[in-house]
Amino acid sequence: MRDFPPEVELIPLPDGLDHSIDIDVWIPDPYPKRAMSIWPWLRGVRLILSLMTGTEWIPGVAGPRVTICNARGAHSISTAEWTLSAILATLKYFPLYLDVQRTGVWKRRFEASAHYARITGDARPLYPPVMLEELTGKAVLLVGYGAIGKEIERMIAPFHVELMRVARSARAKPPVHAVSELDSLLPNADVVILILPSTAESHHLIGRRQLSLMRHGALLVNAARGPVVDTDALVDALNSGHIRAALDVTDPEPLPEGHPLWSCPNLLLTPHVAGSSPQFAVRSLKTTADELRRYIKGEPLHNVVQAAV
Amino acid sequence: MRDFPPEVELIPLPDGLDHSIDIDVWIPDPYPKRAMSIWPWLRGVRLILSLMTGTEWIPGVAGPRVTICNARGAHSISTAEWTLSAILATLKYFPLYLDVQRTGVWKRRFEASAHYARITGDARPLYPPVMLEELTGKAVLLVGYGAIGKEIERMIAPFHVELMRVARSARAKPPVHAVSELDSLLPNADVVILILPSTAESHHLIGRRQLSLMRHGALLVNAARGPVVDTDALVDALNSGHIRAALDVTDPEPLPEGHPLWSCPNLLLTPHVAGSSPQFAVRSLKTTADELRRYIKGEPLHNVVQAAV
Repeated sequence: MRDFPPEVELIPLPDGLDHSIDIDVWIPDPYPKRAMSIWPWLRGVRLILSLMTGTEWIPGVAGPRVTICNARGAHSISTAEWTLSAILATLKYFPLYLDVQRTGVWKRRFEASAHYARITGDARPLYPPVMLEELTGKAVLLVGYGAIGKEIERMIAPFHVELMRVARSARAKPPVHAVSELDSLLPNADVVILILPSTAESHHLIGRRQLSLMRHGALLVNAARGPVVDTDALVDALNSGHIRAALDVTDPEPLPEGHPLWSCPNLLLTPHVAGSSPQFAVRSLKTTADELRRYIKGEPLHNVVQAAV
Repeated sequence: MRDFPPEVELIPLPDGLDHSIDIDVWIPDPYPKRAMSIWPWLRGVRLILSLMTGTEWIPGVAGPRVTICNARGAHSISTAEWTLSAILATLKYFPLYLDVQRTGVWKRRFEASAHYARITGDARPLYPPVMLEELTGKAVLLVGYGAIGKEIERMIAPFHVELMRVARSARAKPPVHAVSELDSLLPNADVVILILPSTAESHHLIGRRQLSLMRHGALLVNAARGPVVDTDALVDALNSGHIRAALDVTDPEPLPEGHPLWSCPNLLLTPHVAGSSPQFAVRSLKTTADELRRYIKGEPLHNVVQAAV
């Protein structure tokens, strides 16, 4: 906290807060449920500085009369690393080789795939007749071109992929397509990366039609939010063997036991950990302290996700 | 084969060759066992052009009176990709999360680690109290600085790692340490990558002492050859929880059923597939055709691994 400007008075808010308190700026607990139980006791809040980048729960709780900033960039490196890791692990068939490793036998290629089908009872794996694939030269569609999208672009650069960028609106340098062109781009991609904010517009952006437009065997990577994808349609697309997926987020989340997604083939699923990082707290507190300094000096804020009405 | 110079006569050698044949240049079958059965029937061979990069079996079969070239570079991209994939998959705990995924429950961090211990009966996993780690900023020791080593350096560059390079002899630009300094470098590395040729000198380069010099929890990646590491010492280092490992090669290889390495914790093991690539044949034949063209013109060869005496 030593980065925080010395002129602010820091007031820790206990978990079981049970009386009203007057503050100007609220830094909510990173866990929304805990933060929500605090909100009714706060008076005079004009600015909310989230330590996270995902702030979609805040407007519904705090209403429109408060400015909300996120810790833009604090998750960028870790989330971009997870994205690259998930793509590479899938293309190198690590899930297949790990399952085979657990059985303690040395099997390659066809043998490994057949062995996998036997040990898992799953005849639907989508492993082409190669030992593994390369990322180098693949066509990659990056849906979302904010801080994390740019980090992904930076980390994927050495692989000389054919990169197509999509954002809310088209831009020229570098070329970015508008999201309205998504359907025409999907059939050209080997890998589709979702890293855009969860909004009303992006809800089910990837639906049944979009999944059917993807190449056979293409990889869908969701490092954004679960509701960006229509889960029922995704389950069908995976079970039919049409595509592969790597997800750090799901809808619903947490994914309940017995949900059909758990047993889908060609899926790598991590429990919303991509943004996690041992370096996160340091980066996030630094971003928050910088924003607080600007607020005190009356300078324009950098990471506004909702301006007060 | 259209890249091959038109002035050469290409003679296909059938698997069950049973009569002598006169040729100038031999391109051996990539499978050493098949190639070895051909060799006794060949007369007049002055040059052997291997389609592979690992040629350690050829001198013992063909003797010292023939020049041997390998397809340097043909495996570089795929092997470098595997190396980066194996490092990232380990740091993101994908083996842990995959095993937990297979059980169909949403568990993060401590919970995932405890769940993993229950489902595998393995109380030895080495997962620190974070959800996953970052490659960014880690100290990486690259042991071997040939074609593949340089590809790895190129692909790891976006992660701003602290890179230490080691080769047979020291060089200045970029700074490369001599292998004699290895023991003093090992304690400074979070990740140790082995990507050097298998020779008498590199046999058991990583032995009990070297493993003990590694940081607790450091990751040993072997993308070179099995005998570069003392397998018995590695099994002990893994079982004690001292280090983690990712191996594409083992000693012996294939690793027999029941070998203690199969049941080591904190290990990602693939069955010697790192160099495999759908693009391999194209790249390897092109390299071989280029070398053949130089040979015909009497130009210096580029990829000599043994000069004829």
